[in-house]
Formats: sequence, C-alpha cells, structure tokens
Amino acid sequence: MATHETPILFMDRTRVRDNYRELKKALPPFRVAYAIKSNSHPEIIEILKKEGAHFETASIAEIEKLLALGVSAGEIILSNPVKAPEAIRRALEHGVTIQSFDSVEELEKFKPYAQSSTALTHRIRPQLRIVVPNEGSMWPLSGKFGADEELWPAIFEYMKTHEIPLDGITFHPGSQCETIAGWDSALYLTWRCIEISREYGLNPTTINIGGGLPVDLGRKIPTAAQVGKVVLRHLKEWERKGFKPADLIVEPGRFISGSAGVLASRVVGVARREKTWAFLDCGVFTGMMETIDGITYPMLFSGTGEKERVMLCGPSCDSVDKMYEAKIPHPKPGDVILFLSAGAYTSVYASDFNGFLGPRIVFLDEIKDPKDLLFLI
Amino acid sequence: MATHETPILFMDRTRVRDNYRELKKALPPFRVAYAIKSNSHPEIIEILKKEGAHFETASIAEIEKLLALGVSAGEIILSNPVKAPEAIRRALEHGVTIQSFDSVEELEKFKPYAQSSTALTHRIRPQLRIVVPNEGSMWPLSGKFGADEELWPAIFEYMKTHEIPLDGITFHPGSQCETIAGWDSALYLTWRCIEISREYGLNPTTINIGGGLPVDLGRKIPTAAQVGKVVLRHLKEWERKGFKPADLIVEPGRFISGSAGVLASRVVGVARREKTWAFLDCGVFTGMMETIDGITYPMLFSGTGEKERVMLCGPSCDSVDKMYEAKIPHPKPGDVILFLSAGAYTSVYASDFNGFLGPRIVFLDEIKDPKDLLFLI
Repeated sequence: MATHETPILFMDRTRVRDNYRELKKALPPFRVAYAIKSNSHPEIIEILKKEGAHFETASIAEIEKLLALGVSAGEIILSNPVKAPEAIRRALEHGVTIQSFDSVEELEKFKPYAQSSTALTHRIRPQLRIVVPNEGSMWPLSGKFGADEELWPAIFEYMKTHEIPLDGITFHPGSQCETIAGWDSALYLTWRCIEISREYGLNPTTINIGGGLPVDLGRKIPTAAQVGKVVLRHLKEWERKGFKPADLIVEPGRFISGSAGVLASRVVGVARREKTWAFLDCGVFTGMMETIDGITYPMLFSGTGEKERVMLCGPSCDSVDKMYEAKIPHPKPGDVILFLSAGAYTSVYASDFNGFLGPRIVFLDEIKDPKDLLFLI
Repeated sequence: MATHETPILFMDRTRVRDNYRELKKALPPFRVAYAIKSNSHPEIIEILKKEGAHFETASIAEIEKLLALGVSAGEIILSNPVKAPEAIRRALEHGVTIQSFDSVEELEKFKPYAQSSTALTHRIRPQLRIVVPNEGSMWPLSGKFGADEELWPAIFEYMKTHEIPLDGITFHPGSQCETIAGWDSALYLTWRCIEISREYGLNPTTINIGGGLPVDLGRKIPTAAQVGKVVLRHLKEWERKGFKPADLIVEPGRFISGSAGVLASRVVGVARREKTWAFLDCGVFTGMMETIDGITYPMLFSGTGEKERVMLCGPSCDSVDKMYEAKIPHPKPGDVILFLSAGAYTSVYASDFNGFLGPRIVFLDEIKDPKDLLFLI
C-alpha cells in the first residue's frame, strides 16, 4: 500500500466508534444523528450504522447516499432549514419526515405535505430552527439560519391558520462550541419557544439540540459528559413542569469524526523572506479550508530543529491558499507535519484546484505493515 | 439535454477564442500561455490549442493533463515558484524547462538540473519571480510569492557561484488588476532586476509578465490593448538600451475564461428576517469561493419585482457559505440569477460538500434547441 504519498488523512475507526459511544453515554435518551457533511466517507457511515447511529443531512444527495448504504429513512434527519421545493418532496417520498424550517417562506413549501390530506404516505414533521446566542462557538452560525423570538408569533400564527403541526424545535449552538454556556442559554430559549408555541395551540414533542460539540484544538473545552449534564438538567426541569419530549436528537459532526483523523502533510518548499514561508502539499483547496476562518490545529512534526515562526501555506499558485502562522521546528523540504483533530471538515472541502489533490483517506487498521508509516519519521 | 438543472456554467467557445485573439493582438511578440487553473475544462484547452496558445501550470497533474491532450512540452510553462523536488524533476523529464523560483531554497532544488552536466536531456530554464507592487489588484499576491529587491543579491550570488543560468524574470501584477499602473511599475522593477543581475554576470533573456488582466466586474478596467500599449512601450525603451528579450510570455487566466462564462443559479429559498436572505443552489463550496475574498459579479435576474437589498448565500448548512449583499429584484424560489464574468475560478474551486454539486459546464453551441434555455426566463 502506498501510504507514503501525502497528503493523507489517517482515520481511526475505533476512535470514531468511541466518540459515538461517549456521546451516547452522555446523552442516553438521545438519538445521535451523525452530521455526514463533516466526513462522509462510506466506511465512517458504516461504522456508525453498526453502532446504531442515526444521520443528519442537508441535501437529497446526502440522503440518497445514506439510503444506498442501507440506512433506513427513519434514521435520517433533514436539518437544512432552507431547501429547494423538490428537495422537500423527494425527501418525503424517501420517508425522511423530520425537516427543519426557520421562516414562513419555508413553511409555505411544507404546506402540501403537512396537512392530514397529504397525497404522500409520509406526513412532514416540521422542526422550527430557532436562533440561539452561539456564545463560545468558533464559527457562529449567526444570521444564515434560525428564527429569533420576534419571528415566532408570525410563524406560529401561520402554522395555526394552515393546520401545520409543529413537531419539534431545534437549535445549533454553533460549530466547535467551546463553552457549556452555549447549551445552557440555548435550552432556556427552547423552553421559552415551547411555551409560546403552546399559546398558539401547537404541541412540539421533538427536541433537537444540533451539533457544536467541540474537539481538542489546544484550548480548554467541555467534555461530552459535561455538555450532557447541562442538557439533562434542563430535561429534568422540563419534566418537573410536565413536559417530556417524545423524541430527542443530537447532531454531532466534528465531535465524531474530528478527533478520529490526523492529516499528514509534507513540506514541499521553504522560502525565507520577510517571514519564513513553509509550502505544504496540503492547503486551503486540498482540505484545510477552515484555516481561512481561523482554525489552527494541534500539530506534530518530523523536523527536530529549533522552533521558528513560520507562515504555513498550500501548494497552489493562489494567494488565498495561506493557512496560518505557527511556531514549528525549522522546516525543510520533505518534513512531515501532522495536523491533529483534522478528521472533520477537511477531506470533504477538498477540490483538485490547480492539479493538487485533496487527502486520500487511509484507515489505520488497513496498515498491515507498520513499515509503511516509516516515511512519517 | 437537461439544461434545466442549475447550477450550470455556460461557456462560450467563441468568446474564449476571441479573448485569446484580442490579447495576442495587443501583445504581438508574446507567447500567450493560458493559466489552466482558472478553468481547466478540456474543451477550453482544445480551443486554445487550436489557436496556437501555450499553457501555464503549477503542478505535475496540470502538466500531464495538457500532455495527454496533445500539448507539447515546449508550450508549457511551470510558473509555480515553490515546488516539490520530484515535481521539478518530473516536469523536466517531460521537457517542461521554464520553471519559476523566488528563493535560494528553490534554487538549491534546481542545481542538479541547471548545470551543463545535468543527466537529463533538458536543462532547466530558471525564471526569477520578483515582487511587484500589485496596486489595483483585487487579490494582491503579496507575501506568498516573489523575491523583493533586497533578496536579489543573495540569489544572484548563489546563481553565479553555482553556475546556474538566470534564464528569465517574471512577475505577477496580482489577479484582476484593474489599473495599468500595475504593469507600468512592475516593468520598471523588472528592468532594475535585469540591470542588477547583469552585475553578477547573469544574462536573463526571457520576460514573463504573468497574468492579472481583468474582466468586467462592473468597474472601469483597462483593455488588453491599453495594457499592451504600456508593456510594448517598456519593451521599446529596453530595445533602445540594447536589450531585446528572446522569449516573451504572458499568462492570462481570468481574461481568457472569465468573460466567456455565465453561471446560472436558482433561488431555492428566501428567509425574511433582520435581513432578507436568498438561498441559491450555488454557493461558496459550489463554485463561488472568490466571494469570500470580496468578488461581486455583475448579475442578471429572471425576477422582475422591485429591487431590495438581499444577502446571497449558498445551499449548504455551513455558516461560511455566504456570498455577498446585493440589490436584486424581490427574490422568490425558482428565480434564476445569472452571474456574469464567472467562467474563471468558479467550477475549478467546487467540491461536493454537503451533497451539493458544483456547476456542470455546458457549451453554448451544444444547445441545439433554444427551448432548452426557456427555463432561464
């Protein structure tokens, strides 16, 4: 096996499974629906399917990929709040009923499938995506998705008038949410939304707390158990008030696949100018796109020299293809850099721009001869 | 033909050819080497090959793609200033001799192939990439590539000592350079570099003025003829001083493919909140990545309502997938938006993140039945 050609994304099946189990343990009553956008490799889906995971999607292509892999429609959630009208219909035809929305405009598209008279076998289960603060999130979702409190009355009024049931409420604390306060405030808001919806005669019974669980990027982060504790405390409080959700969902992406992946990249060249630039065979277009948005990964190095401040960039001729500055051992061509916590939102972003290919995915247990890894040293 | 499934990048072969001819006319003594990274569709390469174009590349994959399409190695330039050592060797083995560099570190990799004793049939022709101001460029390349004047003595000293010939000098005024001052100042600097290199006994004879020629993005831009006039004035001045380059190269990408492409995208949903959001089937991950860096395209609309300020975003669930705000006719699902000047740096950036595919490329002359385009209205 040619493991020596970087960039490679090494994935650890065991870690994927352990991450799933850790979250399941932290949130026992929840369906854990893996956000396949974070890493949609069929073998990762396979591992999680065996564990009993469910799956979160945003598009028909993602849904059909899962169905082709033998996932059943009832285990698929369509959490994209804004969809093409035909995507809504096709998802329902497949039997994917839980679908998000965050505007009256989207509800208009739901209308034909929400009433008891719908021609389809499956009736839609609309989930209102609400805006929550996204405090502590590295990539707040602010703006693009979610209805804030001011919009709820118009939405609920519309649902009441058109007899569209409100099946559930969902939020997203923001990707890589590094403080439990994110979930705490989101759940207070969720309760407020439940109460207001009831004033309109609506009766939400599904609660979907989205994703956002963080991975180790070198800062202090809450564990799944800590997040779970906060979430379960809210559920208990709700139960005390007489509300017990019939369906609970969490949608981790990065938490499952992120820490299970290590991206191996090689220094192809160095240029010492005003700054020192290290050119890697992996860059913004070959998987490291989140670096434009400020991510910095924990790193390991084959180089052993004195550390110096270096600007890391990708191999293409594009000026955008710059990652970030970091202190790394004196780089030279051939050095290997391992980016940790890189299993999510890397391979899936890659294009082959400028003729540079994204990382191949190699599962660690496929490496029969450890000598195949010697090139990393 | 299913032309009705957006996103589609409509490409106009005639326009590709006309753009090439326009630039060739503006710069008669130049080899026009198309930067295939801007749009590497084989049919575009085919059209340009027939016109006699040469090609600019950054990677072995790009070189081998061209060779497979019947382009000869002598018509290929490798203008990536930082390359993996094996890329340098493999390019030379193929016969691609013109290769850029901008550091002593890269010259060290050139050394085995630069001396007259090289084992390969082809001796490398090193082109020094110098830093130029990039004034007026929308995407200045500042920092990532190019040696500035302070670094020239060390580079020339190294070349002299190791008997590496300086074949030529190259620069890049920056992508989408919207003022002729960009070329003017770059050529003054080039002359200065020629003079200094001569003090070290070097004798550059190739001048490569890079790309950067702009397309219409709604602002005043210089024409190819205007850029040509400035460039030819410098050449004349140099000739007066006794210097006539043996090889002249220009490397347009966007100028050739940009204006030849129109990207058709459809509104899939609208959400009216604090702002109005229009969700399109094309976004940052499906071709519109330059929008993160500030590009705004001229647009045409199938919608006819009163104009309103709208935030345009892509179909994925990613918060990064936002384009820009624009005044567009009151949007509704199904509306078509045409992005003009979008033939370059769009399809080549696309991934299939979140299950949303990048634009299919459809050549206008393949549309036999004009009714196939009715969906755009």
